[in-house]
Amino acid sequence: MTALSRPPHGDDARAELRARYRRVRDLTEAFAAPLRPEDQVVQTMADVSPTKWHRGHTTWFFETFLLEPRLTGYEAFDPDFRYLFNSYYEAVGPRHPRAQRGLLSRPTVEEVARYRAHVDGAMEKLIDCCDADAWADFAALAVLGLHHEQQHQELLLMDIKHVLSSNPFDSVYVDPPLAARRTTRPLRMLELEGGLVETGHSAAPGVFAFDNESPRHKVYLEPFRIADRLVTAGEWLAFMADDGYRRPELWLSDGWYAVQEHDWRAPFYWRDDPDGWSVFTLGGWRGVEPDEPVVHVSHYEADAFARWSGARLPTEFEWEHAVATLDALDPRAGLPFTAPHRTRLHPGPAPDTPGLVQASGDVWQWTASAYLPYPRFAPAAGAVGEYNGKFMSGQMVLRGGACITPAGHARATYRNFFPPVSRWMFGGLRLAADA
Amino acid sequence: MTALSRPPHGDDARAELRARYRRVRDLTEAFAAPLRPEDQVVQTMADVSPTKWHRGHTTWFFETFLLEPRLTGYEAFDPDFRYLFNSYYEAVGPRHPRAQRGLLSRPTVEEVARYRAHVDGAMEKLIDCCDADAWADFAALAVLGLHHEQQHQELLLMDIKHVLSSNPFDSVYVDPPLAARRTTRPLRMLELEGGLVETGHSAAPGVFAFDNESPRHKVYLEPFRIADRLVTAGEWLAFMADDGYRRPELWLSDGWYAVQEHDWRAPFYWRDDPDGWSVFTLGGWRGVEPDEPVVHVSHYEADAFARWSGARLPTEFEWEHAVATLDALDPRAGLPFTAPHRTRLHPGPAPDTPGLVQASGDVWQWTASAYLPYPRFAPAAGAVGEYNGKFMSGQMVLRGGACITPAGHARATYRNFFPPVSRWMFGGLRLAADA
Amino acid sequence: MTALSRPPHGDDARAELRARYRRVRDLTEAFAAPLRPEDQVVQTMADVSPTKWHRGHTTWFFETFLLEPRLTGYEAFDPDFRYLFNSYYEAVGPRHPRAQRGLLSRPTVEEVARYRAHVDGAMEKLIDCCDADAWADFAALAVLGLHHEQQHQELLLMDIKHVLSSNPFDSVYVDPPLAARRTTRPLRMLELEGGLVETGHSAAPGVFAFDNESPRHKVYLEPFRIADRLVTAGEWLAFMADDGYRRPELWLSDGWYAVQEHDWRAPFYWRDDPDGWSVFTLGGWRGVEPDEPVVHVSHYEADAFARWSGARLPTEFEWEHAVATLDALDPRAGLPFTAPHRTRLHPGPAPDTPGLVQASGDVWQWTASAYLPYPRFAPAAGAVGEYNGKFMSGQMVLRGGACITPAGHARATYRNFFPPVSRWMFGGLRLAADA
Amino acid sequence: MTALSRPPHGDDARAELRARYRRVRDLTEAFAAPLRPEDQVVQTMADVSPTKWHRGHTTWFFETFLLEPRLTGYEAFDPDFRYLFNSYYEAVGPRHPRAQRGLLSRPTVEEVARYRAHVDGAMEKLIDCCDADAWADFAALAVLGLHHEQQHQELLLMDIKHVLSSNPFDSVYVDPPLAARRTTRPLRMLELEGGLVETGHSAAPGVFAFDNESPRHKVYLEPFRIADRLVTAGEWLAFMADDGYRRPELWLSDGWYAVQEHDWRAPFYWRDDPDGWSVFTLGGWRGVEPDEPVVHVSHYEADAFARWSGARLPTEFEWEHAVATLDALDPRAGLPFTAPHRTRLHPGPAPDTPGLVQASGDVWQWTASAYLPYPRFAPAAGAVGEYNGKFMSGQMVLRGGACITPAGHARATYRNFFPPVSRWMFGGLRLAADA
Repeated sequence: MTALSRPPHGDDARAELRARYRRVRDLTEAFAAPLRPEDQVVQTMADVSPTKWHRGHTTWFFETFLLEPRLTGYEAFDPDFRYLFNSYYEAVGPRHPRAQRGLLSRPTVEEVARYRAHVDGAMEKLIDCCDADAWADFAALAVLGLHHEQQHQELLLMDIKHVLSSNPFDSVYVDPPLAARRTTRPLRMLELEGGLVETGHSAAPGVFAFDNESPRHKVYLEPFRIADRLVTAGEWLAFMADDGYRRPELWLSDGWYAVQEHDWRAPFYWRDDPDGWSVFTLGGWRGVEPDEPVVHVSHYEADAFARWSGARLPTEFEWEHAVATLDALDPRAGLPFTAPHRTRLHPGPAPDTPGLVQASGDVWQWTASAYLPYPRFAPAAGAVGEYNGKFMSGQMVLRGGACITPAGHARATYRNFFPPVSRWMFGGLRLAADA
Repeated sequence: MTALSRPPHGDDARAELRARYRRVRDLTEAFAAPLRPEDQVVQTMADVSPTKWHRGHTTWFFETFLLEPRLTGYEAFDPDFRYLFNSYYEAVGPRHPRAQRGLLSRPTVEEVARYRAHVDGAMEKLIDCCDADAWADFAALAVLGLHHEQQHQELLLMDIKHVLSSNPFDSVYVDPPLAARRTTRPLRMLELEGGLVETGHSAAPGVFAFDNESPRHKVYLEPFRIADRLVTAGEWLAFMADDGYRRPELWLSDGWYAVQEHDWRAPFYWRDDPDGWSVFTLGGWRGVEPDEPVVHVSHYEADAFARWSGARLPTEFEWEHAVATLDALDPRAGLPFTAPHRTRLHPGPAPDTPGLVQASGDVWQWTASAYLPYPRFAPAAGAVGEYNGKFMSGQMVLRGGACITPAGHARATYRNFFPPVSRWMFGGLRLAADA
Repeated sequence: MTALSRPPHGDDARAELRARYRRVRDLTEAFAAPLRPEDQVVQTMADVSPTKWHRGHTTWFFETFLLEPRLTGYEAFDPDFRYLFNSYYEAVGPRHPRAQRGLLSRPTVEEVARYRAHVDGAMEKLIDCCDADAWADFAALAVLGLHHEQQHQELLLMDIKHVLSSNPFDSVYVDPPLAARRTTRPLRMLELEGGLVETGHSAAPGVFAFDNESPRHKVYLEPFRIADRLVTAGEWLAFMADDGYRRPELWLSDGWYAVQEHDWRAPFYWRDDPDGWSVFTLGGWRGVEPDEPVVHVSHYEADAFARWSGARLPTEFEWEHAVATLDALDPRAGLPFTAPHRTRLHPGPAPDTPGLVQASGDVWQWTASAYLPYPRFAPAAGAVGEYNGKFMSGQMVLRGGACITPAGHARATYRNFFPPVSRWMFGGLRLAADA
Repeated sequence: MTALSRPPHGDDARAELRARYRRVRDLTEAFAAPLRPEDQVVQTMADVSPTKWHRGHTTWFFETFLLEPRLTGYEAFDPDFRYLFNSYYEAVGPRHPRAQRGLLSRPTVEEVARYRAHVDGAMEKLIDCCDADAWADFAALAVLGLHHEQQHQELLLMDIKHVLSSNPFDSVYVDPPLAARRTTRPLRMLELEGGLVETGHSAAPGVFAFDNESPRHKVYLEPFRIADRLVTAGEWLAFMADDGYRRPELWLSDGWYAVQEHDWRAPFYWRDDPDGWSVFTLGGWRGVEPDEPVVHVSHYEADAFARWSGARLPTEFEWEHAVATLDALDPRAGLPFTAPHRTRLHPGPAPDTPGLVQASGDVWQWTASAYLPYPRFAPAAGAVGEYNGKFMSGQMVLRGGACITPAGHARATYRNFFPPVSRWMFGGLRLAADA
């Protein structure tokens, strides 16, 4: 993190951090509340982690990086958890293999809840007693831990969606999503001039960003055009009807291979029912609505769709430049901080507001950019330096933020990334073109 | 089942069946009682089924083969269960893939308990109201269902042992097993004359056997010798010390391949601790005791050990002939009908009694016989005909019965069978030799 | 080999062995003659070995087991060949992995030919100069080497058939097979009484047999019936037309799994052409002829066909008893010693001769018997003891001999064996039933 | 190809093209000349194609894209070759699976030679008779075909190196490479100012480039430094001695996974001999020479080495800017047009010349850039549009040119690309750093 926030260390700062800590931690528990212990154990593919693992791992982060080095006399809840709940931090030691997280029946869900309470108590103590000298570093790490937990809140929802969808019969996480309105706003291409522009996060006091968003630097953009809204399910149906999944000339070579290997012929979570296409949502199965953004498509599919449209995907720099220039991103979009399971948890149709809409709060948007370090990028020091940098290979950048991204978590400079074949996260697309 | 029992259909018969039904069904629940919901969901390898699946599948057997065809007005608890809890009965319809049983978070453990109660109520009603005319067939099928459930009680224990052992840290199902006594009885070879002998189950009223044990038929045996007790862990340690796992000349070709592919160098559930070999039991990890029978070895290992000993495995016909001639099998050996989780659930050292001991109640004993149909074998009619016959390929016969086999379930003619590479069931061995 | 032949050691014996050696070795070369170097290098699946490997390995057998221990001053042609041409003899040392034989471009075909000439020269010298004392053992081993080479002649043909069939366009090894006559002889079941009979090879001077055919021993057979001819392609078409490949109740469980995994719906080498089923032969593709025996079916398919027919496969003991009793086996059937590529190399329709026909010379016949040791079986001493015994697991016995089996190689007691899923050898079937 | 050369269509142009065609085609045959038919058939991993396939496929390119559409009355040598020798052109029709090219024994090497002669004759006729109107397009396509063949010349050498190395015993393609001189020039970092620079191919008459090198466009570069020579084998030995292959903190996550999955601990083709590290060259095995450039390392290894050095890889834009600014690339470097198998075919130590050396002619140099389209990139029209664009996913760019790249084939703007895990091509590295 080249630009961690540096909160003041007075009592207000402590109170604020305590409240924020509590709010984020509670939200995770609220997400788990509708689930049965059985739901929280299962791992339905290697990419998915069990709910109880997410709950444990986010807790382990605070225990490992904050409590153990900084809280005198802290006693680990269970030393075995160091092994069980490490995700990928080589510097911290060996860890349980990722693909085998679903083979563990223990610790039970109840034990994980006790683990969370144990760490929460200690964290609150540390917030109160942390030396003024150490405060800035401590608070920066704590805020990193909270952003880390927010990322896992989104993962938890992505993963439980996959778990519930694997039951052959309908399983519902929340009440069904509200019906989307029925009219699609016509798509308009907004034109931008480009030129030598700045991109990336500019370090500013009190503003958090991950290390991979920095340093802010110059890039040269040719004039370009970008769509004012997301691609819809209805437009995707037209692509399918025009044999989009059967025409190799529309696809990258790796994408065409994936189409055939996995027998793709529609977005993930779509099902061809006798009365039309259905989609699995966190509220269960329901008909595909043409006006809602398409979601759960891979980079390969997004790229092929764009080619079929006579367009292309924007680069991450074009996307960021457009969104920043047009001031289009609403950081409150996405998942509100309360009552998560009352919200839609599914993207909705574009609003009528003029200008670039749906920048955030519906789906992550695939870009044409590979996930690579910015010029002069340097990972954070220590084990948390493994957070981002070592994944800069074989992945594509997504921008924006989804309906399951916690409000306040996304930024215009935020770089999400996944392998181009991944479909289980909430990935959709926005078109671009040369001007 | 060529020789199903035919209980009288008077009130006594009904009362007796009701009591027996209740006893077997209760035992299954008693086995699940020490487990948390999380333990009952997990599938740690393709061979293992989750506890809740065993509880559901044994119930499905009664629902599918008894209630639906015979109880007027019976309403299925949940029609989806027909798909979820079918194991391998092609004639009954499609089914959930075996290797994906652990991907199902639903139905929950609690729902499965309600399913069991629903079916138990209906079964008790059917026992009371079944026509006198239909009684014999009904009772025979019900008894088959109870033997089927007993087999799954053993599977449930084998499987939960694997599940608990997959937690990297010690997980205990029951109190640790009692310490075994410390003296090994010297091994004696008992000599038998052989000749033209009879083998297999002879149909007799009121005596249950599976169809694969019939018909009783003649086989010719050369004179042979058979060990009076099982091979011990101490003897296995000597085999290991003599490089038993590193000498290809001791092994069948497939066995040697397995040794290398899986890097076998000790029985399954053994661990090389700094202070010697430990073994995982249903009571947790403890030191290997030299006097207890070796258990959790594959056919390949048993065969290699026998070759190393200058002996061989008995054929299933030799085994049966010896045990029947010497009247060595105690049908009450194994798991008593009450308080299962207070028993050892681990094999114990040989008693001092003269003659052939440990015929049953400790470990299943690998034989040199492939699992093939007896001459003039005919599977039972209807879907239950899939019970045994279709598995007569690629498997080896084990005889006897283990410490986790319910008392009263084993017989001298009982043919258990597993692929030669399998290790997670309670397989051990008894030596034989040419006379 | 418990019953190796013991030829007299006079000059006649030497001359006879020299002639026999030359005849067998020449036949192998005659098989390779129609092939281009390119054909002799390729390995189209793990089971297949390149032609040049067969030519080298059979030569290695003589070099390793005869020349190196017995010919003073013998110099290995190339010490690397010890590694390259060892098949599976653990006692001889490490070896090139079987599945990677097709990755070797060297030694070239020409070098292999020189290797053969080098060893042939040395063998002829050894035949001439071998001490009278050592003659019996030497000659027995030499004869074993020749039988070994005959087995590889058959393997070479099986394998090159697979290689040529893998070219997408028609590749022909020999002139097309002669047309089969057009009438199928009606199938008759011959009845045999059974009882306590003898089976296996009885050691007799001058008669060769492999070790797995001994000792001769008693088995008890129930009265049974056996078909007087092989199952035909026409009968197989009827099985297919009756949904034989789509009805699980006809199949062993492992067989049904194989049907679905490999999408079997006809014998191997059959192709569904617009104008009917074609079959690939060593003479290329041609229409399936209803009167010829079906060939290239797995044990699973043979078993399912028999069940569909209301019959079963014979045990190997029934087969041997019937063939021996009826004196039905013609040892000259199969591949004549000359001009191999002028023969049919494809099974032909049954002759009109009365009694049991096609015992040998058309297809190997699957039996219901697992490949297991006979009572009191003992493998040969030394490395050649690995020849048979270690494969007695997971395989089924086939009896008879095929159109590509060298004449004089088969016997009534001969036990061929393959995994039940194998199809590329010349496997067919003969029906049996209970009397 | 946005910038195909447009040769004048007079007699000189025809003569020049004819001579060039002949020269390139002959060179391919010269490469095959030292090989036996057996060498030309084998496919030792999925990435490798058999020599005879390369010889056929380059011929198919001329037949498919030039002769069939343009030479009236042209008759295909063998219509089946359309299927067999198509590499990846979906628009041309179905094709033989890439990983199964080594399963084809036919067409033989001799038939492929006849195919080449057939097409060469027709091409020469077409060069002579092509209409003046059609000449420009025809000549541009023919030149593309020749550059295509040059790429396959390099592939042929990469692939045959792998084939020969798969023989367990030493196989030599050419005479051993000359010994490298013994002094390593000390590494100097050259500094460049960066700024807004131009990159990519600028269309110019008569200058060939592939479509992926265009359009020329602006990029902004921060000031940077770049090494004046390649990383040497001696420097790589220091990386290995410093546990470079055992320290996860040096590696990208995917790279660390590859290290463990493939058990990497040295460059590909290196072997740990008792007397030190050896390397397999096209002249056979010989000791690693510390002064020669390291070669056959993956992108992951190059990236880890750079991190270990406190440096990084250059982006492809930095590389091109440095080489173009410093005029460092010698297009005659690499493989001369004559007598290929007399040359070294292995990279050599840096010359003493001042400035940036080894830009081309030794190894391809991994960059930090993912292989992505340039702004406003448009693939060529028609089937040849599949040449480059569809591979712009999951690959990294290499720049420069290797000792096996035909002279005249490389350019400063040339973009080679491979998956980051690939090692069998001649990939090495040059370091860079922030200024």
